[in-house]
Amino acid sequence: MIDIRDRVRCKALHDKIVSAEEAAAFIKPGMNIGASGFTPAGYPKAVPLALAKRMAQDPFKINLWTGASVGKELDGALAAVGGIHKRMPYQTNTDLRNALNSGEVEYYDLHLSESAQLTRYGFLGGKVDVAIVEACAITEEGHIVPTTSLGNTASYVQSADIVIVEVNTTQPLELEGMHDVYVPLDPPHRQPVPIVKVDDRIGTTYIPCGPDKIKYIVPCDITDDVRPFGPIDECSQKMSELIIDFFKHEIKVGRMPKNMLPLQSGVGSVANAVISGFVDSDFTDLEVYTEVIQDGMLDLTDAGKLKFASGTSFSPSPDGLKRLYSNIGVYRQKMMLRPQEIANSPEIARRIGIIAMNTAIEFDIFGHVNSTHIMGSKMMNGIGGSGDFARNAYLTCFFSTSTAKNGAISSIVPMCSHIDHTEHDTDIFVTEMGLADVRGLSPRERARVIINNCAHPDYKPMLLDYLKKGEKATKKAHTPHVIKDALSWHARFIKTGTMKK
Amino acid sequence: MIDIRDRVRCKALHDKIVSAEEAAAFIKPGMNIGASGFTPAGYPKAVPLALAKRMAQDPFKINLWTGASVGKELDGALAAVGGIHKRMPYQTNTDLRNALNSGEVEYYDLHLSESAQLTRYGFLGGKVDVAIVEACAITEEGHIVPTTSLGNTASYVQSADIVIVEVNTTQPLELEGMHDVYVPLDPPHRQPVPIVKVDDRIGTTYIPCGPDKIKYIVPCDITDDVRPFGPIDECSQKMSELIIDFFKHEIKVGRMPKNMLPLQSGVGSVANAVISGFVDSDFTDLEVYTEVIQDGMLDLTDAGKLKFASGTSFSPSPDGLKRLYSNIGVYRQKMMLRPQEIANSPEIARRIGIIAMNTAIEFDIFGHVNSTHIMGSKMMNGIGGSGDFARNAYLTCFFSTSTAKNGAISSIVPMCSHIDHTEHDTDIFVTEMGLADVRGLSPRERARVIINNCAHPDYKPMLLDYLKKGEKATKKAHTPHVIKDALSWHARFIKTGTMKK
Ligand SMILES: CC(C)(COP(=O)(O)OP(=O)(O)OC[C@H]1O[C@@H](n2cnc3c(N)ncnc32)[C@H](O)[C@@H]1OP(=O)(O)O)[C@@H](O)C(=O)NCCC(=O)NCCS
Ligand SMILES: CC(C)(COP(=O)(O)OP(=O)(O)OC[C@H]1O[C@@H](n2cnc3c(N)ncnc32)[C@H](O)[C@@H]1OP(=O)(O)O)[C@@H](O)C(=O)NCCC(=O)NCCS
Repeated sequence: MIDIRDRVRCKALHDKIVSAEEAAAFIKPGMNIGASGFTPAGYPKAVPLALAKRMAQDPFKINLWTGASVGKELDGALAAVGGIHKRMPYQTNTDLRNALNSGEVEYYDLHLSESAQLTRYGFLGGKVDVAIVEACAITEEGHIVPTTSLGNTASYVQSADIVIVEVNTTQPLELEGMHDVYVPLDPPHRQPVPIVKVDDRIGTTYIPCGPDKIKYIVPCDITDDVRPFGPIDECSQKMSELIIDFFKHEIKVGRMPKNMLPLQSGVGSVANAVISGFVDSDFTDLEVYTEVIQDGMLDLTDAGKLKFASGTSFSPSPDGLKRLYSNIGVYRQKMMLRPQEIANSPEIARRIGIIAMNTAIEFDIFGHVNSTHIMGSKMMNGIGGSGDFARNAYLTCFFSTSTAKNGAISSIVPMCSHIDHTEHDTDIFVTEMGLADVRGLSPRERARVIINNCAHPDYKPMLLDYLKKGEKATKKAHTPHVIKDALSWHARFIKTGTMKK
Repeated sequence: MIDIRDRVRCKALHDKIVSAEEAAAFIKPGMNIGASGFTPAGYPKAVPLALAKRMAQDPFKINLWTGASVGKELDGALAAVGGIHKRMPYQTNTDLRNALNSGEVEYYDLHLSESAQLTRYGFLGGKVDVAIVEACAITEEGHIVPTTSLGNTASYVQSADIVIVEVNTTQPLELEGMHDVYVPLDPPHRQPVPIVKVDDRIGTTYIPCGPDKIKYIVPCDITDDVRPFGPIDECSQKMSELIIDFFKHEIKVGRMPKNMLPLQSGVGSVANAVISGFVDSDFTDLEVYTEVIQDGMLDLTDAGKLKFASGTSFSPSPDGLKRLYSNIGVYRQKMMLRPQEIANSPEIARRIGIIAMNTAIEFDIFGHVNSTHIMGSKMMNGIGGSGDFARNAYLTCFFSTSTAKNGAISSIVPMCSHIDHTEHDTDIFVTEMGLADVRGLSPRERARVIINNCAHPDYKPMLLDYLKKGEKATKKAHTPHVIKDALSWHARFIKTGTMKK
């Protein structure tokens, strides 16, 4: 067994160091498990793998609550053995996705900022029975030093009676000091979250726990299962240029400060491309208040353009992770991880005036956005934090290529097949075709701008035709839909494999 | 002309007292007019009537920005002469509704908490050219004492170069002292809104203005155009009982404090019935943090059950208005009006843990809510503050009768024809048939609870049938829709006049 005694600084806890198998044996069927982890970063690995092994022999299910998606050793391994009954709040794993789209797993897809408080309120069917938490170290007082993510971990530890800690020796000890742990009180006792600048420190560098709650400590040396990014393609490049030009224009006309406002950028390749666009720009002193810190933020730091980045997890590519680890002394001056309840807090997003940039699966001509469902039924990932930011941002931008599946799908449709962000929340739409600024526009006005600026030429005439028919059928009602045809594009795709006629 | 000089305490301003016609003559075509008013309360009346008269002779249009809906002397009169080009953020007037559903008026329907800041940011097409504000009085320093609503008035006055004040002698001077005026700074300078209890006072009792900005002062003696409530019908009574029983259960199991958390309740008869239910209950020390203070709140006060109510407008029935005016000494101990940016603030709603209760036009089996559109196209009123509260509340409840139009419409549908609140925001649904608690449930689970507890017996089998077909067609996908049939109930109604087959 790997020796982790130097990382378990509370000597009284050394007796609790056990194998992953022994710790996993403690988990009972039907338990609510609150795990650390947010994106493939900072999630427990050894205990879940041992648990999955046990479930493979003796099938049973647990409910799994995390920060967001987690790596294959947790979501993947448990889904593969049918070990999850209920899952919240976010996932991206292929096996799990298949399970929740076939009635095997019940998935509760909710705003990431709300998941911790709903757990504390007791709204999700009982409390956290066991928290399983990856740590860099355990302090002299028995508190937990987190690793590459913070997510909901502090709340799960606070709510749980029993805590299992996985001390991961691949996580550098220099991560200690990069976290700012703050768990709000619940109503009617809650106080203002005292953040007014992205780098304000309001909490502790460890998760308060104490030795008594810790039942087992398990050594682990499996690294975070981070994924490479694809190269920045032409479409992402184009969208990045469009939005940066737009920001420059907003600054010029006085609607945005010169060094912008704090940037939030979603997960994935478009988001990464946009941030990379800033690296090559003449912006300086940029601030970031976001969920996930990816490679782009490291590039911004290296280019001397980043003032500070606050997030809830480090989720770079494998190369990025190496850079982060090897240069951590530099990055720790510029970066901080917070609980997702604070990273995604509506209060903070509105106060500091975030510029929210997220990716859509599809959006419709009236400005509604689908972030989650393929053809209205199949869950892709989940809403994640996109709603926390989109609703409360200073400016809300959504990105998508104008088509999907080699042009068989238009990402701009008459009506979204599922709606995660309503017309009331969206300001700017960007595809590789152009940018639509719909601030202050009525739905009829919005439709024209969105179709003309963002739609693919193959679909533009069809969309304009739909709009005109809607105006005729409804005598120019506020939102002129032809209800019987509103979802016909999706129905056609399901039937024929293309939205084209 | 009515003598208002005793109410214009800044003597230097007496020269600016003019007729409504003279003030209205100052308005130019295309101007952005920021008016006071929130529900038929506290809106200017004399100047808009004079403006409408002028427009009738010499047609032109302005853009009208208010707090929310306003009375017939403003929305009604201007819509009747085709005097509105663009309207935001909320309306309920029949003439205006017809105009925006026939392409005559462009309507920007947005979250009420956001309208003031979007104006200040300059996102809505220019700034406020002229603010027209109803006042009880003007202070010695030239500041404005508002009347029965606060809405966006303070922001409009702050942003405008020119202010026209209507001093309304029907508004009692005892309203002075009931307002708490606070306009946040904009990012990056914004600070926490320092409210932790519903009765915390954080601002001034007047709207800061100063004599220089005031161009004209107009006397007015037209009363607020408040409307009577219908008697509480059987359905509303039943819904009120269901939700109060549910709250009692939540208190019993420890998920809610004994005297509840601050209540928010929407506009209209169901909302009023629910509040009346509390009057007859054994709850005490109730707190209210809401938009509109209606008759029910007066009843709660009279019954000794109200600790404090914070809102942004007084919108009682004609009888209620009389009660408010004649007993204002008592009510002013218990009630306060704030800007809607603060009354509806996401920051405050989440901090103090509001219980949000609003009415839906329809909701779907997966928990999405339509608050605004009839059959997907025709605007009813607008989203108002329902999204501000629903998204950020401790608990989010929506009410609707199970059917509309004598049973020809099911208010519970396979898919909403327009979505204002997503599945991610809703907890509790109530119809006269029963209550559905969907917290923590997956869409497949939610659908069964909603159909079984809330649907009308005439539509229950049809809804269950849709769900089963969806599960078959999608092999139990996360949200099992039959996309080609998802809006077929609405299409059928449009074609045949009923959702029944
Ligand atoms: C929306 C989201 C799925 C896009 O992710 P992405 O990696 O940029 O998307 P891609 O273009 O690779 O598309 C993903 C898949 O959806 C498919 N797709 C994209 N648009 C589609 C559309 N309009 N209709 C159907 N399928 C579509 C793609 O073809 C691809 O399918 P594949 O996996 O079979 O190849 C992702 O951003 C997400 O999950 N967002 C929600 C949460 C969120 O916004 N988090 C960030 C804030 S915290
Ligand atoms: C949703 C809302 C319109 C309901 O208001 P209400 O007065 O309780 O509703 P009613 O039952 O009287 O219905 C209003 C109309 O809609 C019709 N209607 C109701 N449900 C319907 C449905 N499912 N489909 C079609 N029409 C429907 C009614 O028949 C009625 O029509 P009529 O005016 O022709 O008679 C109203 O609450 C609203 O505007 N809400 C949005 C803003 C908000 O929530 N504000 C409060 C928070 S700040």
